[in-house]
Amino acid sequence: MKKEMKYISLLGATGSIGTQTLDVIRAYPDKFHLKAISVGRNMELTRKIIKEFKPEFVSVQYKDDYEQLRKEYSSDITFSYGEEGLIEAAVYPSDLLLNAVIGSIGLHPTLMAIQTKKQVAIANKETLVTAGHLVMAAAKEHQVDLLPVDSEHSAIFQCLQGEKKSQIDRLILTASGGSFRSLSRDQLQHVTVEDALKHPNWSMGAKLTIDSATMMNKGLEVIEAHWLFGIPYEQIDVLLHHESIIHSMVEFQDSSVIAQLGTPDMRVPIQYALTYPDRMPLKQAKKLHLAEIGKLHFEEMDLERFYCLQLAFEAGKEGGTTATVLNAANEVAVQAFLQKRISFLQIESLIEAALNRHQGIKQPDLETISAVDQETRVYVGSLID
Amino acid sequence: MKKEMKYISLLGATGSIGTQTLDVIRAYPDKFHLKAISVGRNMELTRKIIKEFKPEFVSVQYKDDYEQLRKEYSSDITFSYGEEGLIEAAVYPSDLLLNAVIGSIGLHPTLMAIQTKKQVAIANKETLVTAGHLVMAAAKEHQVDLLPVDSEHSAIFQCLQGEKKSQIDRLILTASGGSFRSLSRDQLQHVTVEDALKHPNWSMGAKLTIDSATMMNKGLEVIEAHWLFGIPYEQIDVLLHHESIIHSMVEFQDSSVIAQLGTPDMRVPIQYALTYPDRMPLKQAKKLHLAEIGKLHFEEMDLERFYCLQLAFEAGKEGGTTATVLNAANEVAVQAFLQKRISFLQIESLIEAALNRHQGIKQPDLETISAVDQETRVYVGSLID
Repeated sequence: MKKEMKYISLLGATGSIGTQTLDVIRAYPDKFHLKAISVGRNMELTRKIIKEFKPEFVSVQYKDDYEQLRKEYSSDITFSYGEEGLIEAAVYPSDLLLNAVIGSIGLHPTLMAIQTKKQVAIANKETLVTAGHLVMAAAKEHQVDLLPVDSEHSAIFQCLQGEKKSQIDRLILTASGGSFRSLSRDQLQHVTVEDALKHPNWSMGAKLTIDSATMMNKGLEVIEAHWLFGIPYEQIDVLLHHESIIHSMVEFQDSSVIAQLGTPDMRVPIQYALTYPDRMPLKQAKKLHLAEIGKLHFEEMDLERFYCLQLAFEAGKEGGTTATVLNAANEVAVQAFLQKRISFLQIESLIEAALNRHQGIKQPDLETISAVDQETRVYVGSLID
Repeated sequence: MKKEMKYISLLGATGSIGTQTLDVIRAYPDKFHLKAISVGRNMELTRKIIKEFKPEFVSVQYKDDYEQLRKEYSSDITFSYGEEGLIEAAVYPSDLLLNAVIGSIGLHPTLMAIQTKKQVAIANKETLVTAGHLVMAAAKEHQVDLLPVDSEHSAIFQCLQGEKKSQIDRLILTASGGSFRSLSRDQLQHVTVEDALKHPNWSMGAKLTIDSATMMNKGLEVIEAHWLFGIPYEQIDVLLHHESIIHSMVEFQDSSVIAQLGTPDMRVPIQYALTYPDRMPLKQAKKLHLAEIGKLHFEEMDLERFYCLQLAFEAGKEGGTTATVLNAANEVAVQAFLQKRISFLQIESLIEAALNRHQGIKQPDLETISAVDQETRVYVGSLID
C-alpha cells in the first residue's frame, strides 16, 4: 500500500459501523485521517470523536445541537446540520467517503460524493436498494470505485478480485438464519421482540437484528448485490449457513467456487474498503481457526419459511420503485414490531400489502423515489394505527 | 478469453492427469489444439489419441514402441522416444506445456520448456519438490507463468488472483486424511495394500493413494507450495478436511481468508491452467451444492500421527538436496509397500533412515540432484532387500 495519507469523510460516525470505522482509522494514524463526519444525536460521543480525531467538518442532525457545538468549539471546526450538513460532509474534500448513515437520507449524499470523484464505501442500504440504477450510472459516469462495507458484499467483492464479471455463474450469499432459524412458521406467530433481539452470531442494531430474523436483511442484500455486481437475480442464491464463517461466495463458469471466510468482525470489510485494493494487518484481529470451529453447516434456503426473502426477490426483479416500497414498508413495520404494536409475522403481511397496492414506476428519479418512500410509509402506518 | 487457438504440448498423455487434460482439450476444439505428446507404454491408448487429436509430435518411453509406431504411421507425425524424446516433446513449438509425467524424469523437460518461454503447467511433483530453486529461478529469468495443476495449488493460485504476495499471512492446504484417517498409529501397523487403495474422495493412481494415506502427498505439496508461492514453511499450514470440498485457502494480513471450493474434479484445475487468467464453462461439470453436502468438517493436523508430514516439513526447511532424498526414499518405500515387501509404517521408517544418513547439499544443480536421487534409491533399496 502506498505510504501516503488517505483522507476520509465518515457519515454516521457514532453508529455501529461508524465507531468500528473509527477503530480502523485509530489503528493507522499514519495512513488514515478523518476529515469530516456526520453524526446523529449522540453529542457525548461526538465530543469524544472531535477530541480524538480533530475532524475539520462536523455535521449534526439537529439545529440545537449544532448551535451548542458552535459555542463550545473554536472556529477551527466547521459545523453544520440537517440534510444539507450531511451532503456538505459527504462532499467535503477527502479521498474516500464511508457512508454509514441509516435510512434513505443516506442516498443523496452518496450521489453528491460520487460527482466529486472520491471513492465511496457504502454501508447505507438505501443507496443501492432504492436507487441502484442511479448510483451505478453515476459511478460509471464519474469512474468512481464503489466499495461495499457489508460483510457479504465485501466477501463477494474480494472473491471477484482478478476475475471477470462475464465469467461469473452465480453469487451465493450466505445467511445465518437469524434469531428464529430453528422455528417453524407456526412457532413464529408468538415470538416477542426480546426473543428477536438475540442474534446468534453478529452484534448489531435492533433494526438489523429484526431484518436478520425475517430474512429481509438478506433480501435487501440480494438487491444490493444485483446492482453492485451487475448480476441478474436468477444468478443470485441465498444459502443458510449457521456459523456465518463463509461470508459469501462466487461460483464461476468453470464450476470453481471462490469464498471469503473469517470470524464475525465488521472491521475486516471496513478496513478492506479503506485499503482496497491492498490489505493491511488488522489490529487485535481474532484469526479464523476452522479446526476449533470443527463443522460448518449448510442448508437450502426455504422461501416459504422466510417469506420476506421471497418478497425481496420479487420486488428486485420487478425493479423501479418496487424495491423502494419494499424497503420503506419494512422500515415502518419493523419499527412497529419493536414498539410491540404488531406481531412478528405481521411485518411480512404489511410489506406484502404495500407491494400489492403499488403501481411500479420504472427508472425513477430521486424525487419520485422520495415520494414513493414517503407515501409507502404513510400507507403502512395507516394499516397499523 | 481471446478467441485465438492455444497450442499445447502434453507430457504423460495416457496417465490420469493426461487423459483428463485430453477431456478438456476435446471439449474446446476451437480453443485448444494438441501439438505434441509424450506417453509411456500404453500403445493402445496412444493410437487412439493419435487418431483423435492428430498431434504432430509423439514421444514414447521405449525404442521398440517407437519403431513400431514409425512403421504404422505416415511421415506427417514425428516420433521419438526416451528421455530425449520427452524433452523434444516439451520444447516442441506450442503455447503451453502441461507436464503430467510421473517421477524425476519430468524435471529436465520442464526446465527446457521454460527456456522456450512457453507457459508451463505443472502436474509433475518432482519439478518443484527436488528442484524448486532451479525451476523458480528459470521461470523468473525467462518471465514464464508457472501454472499449478494440483487441486490444492490451483486453489491457492486462484485465491491469490488480484492479491499481493506481501500481504499473505498463511497458506492453508487442506487434506482429506486419506484411507486411514480414522485409524490410530497402533491400528496402522496391520493395514494392507488393499485397505490403503480405498481413497474416500478422489480417484487416482496407486502411488498417489498411498502418499495420501501416509500424508506424504501433503508433505510434498507443502514443499511445492513453498516454492511456487515463495512462502516460508512457517506460514504454511495443513488442515484436515474430510470432504475435500475446500481445496485450499489463503489467509491474508487483515485476517480475511479466501478459499477455493468445488466437487472433486481434476478437470477444473487442469482447465484453469489452460485458460488462465480466464475461465470457461466446464463441460458436464458437477456443480457444488453445499446444502446437499450439509456439513464440512475440519480438524487440527497431528504431525505425530501423520509422521511423514512432519518429515516433509523438516526436509523442506532443511532445503538443498534433502527434499530430493525425502522424495526418492518415499518412492522406493511406497513401491515396496505396494509389492507387499514392507509394512505400511515401514514407509516412514525408511524415509527417516534415508534422511538421517544424508548430508544435505545446498543449491544443488541438476546433476547433483540426479546423483542424490539415484544414491537414495539404491540405499533405501538395500534396506529392503
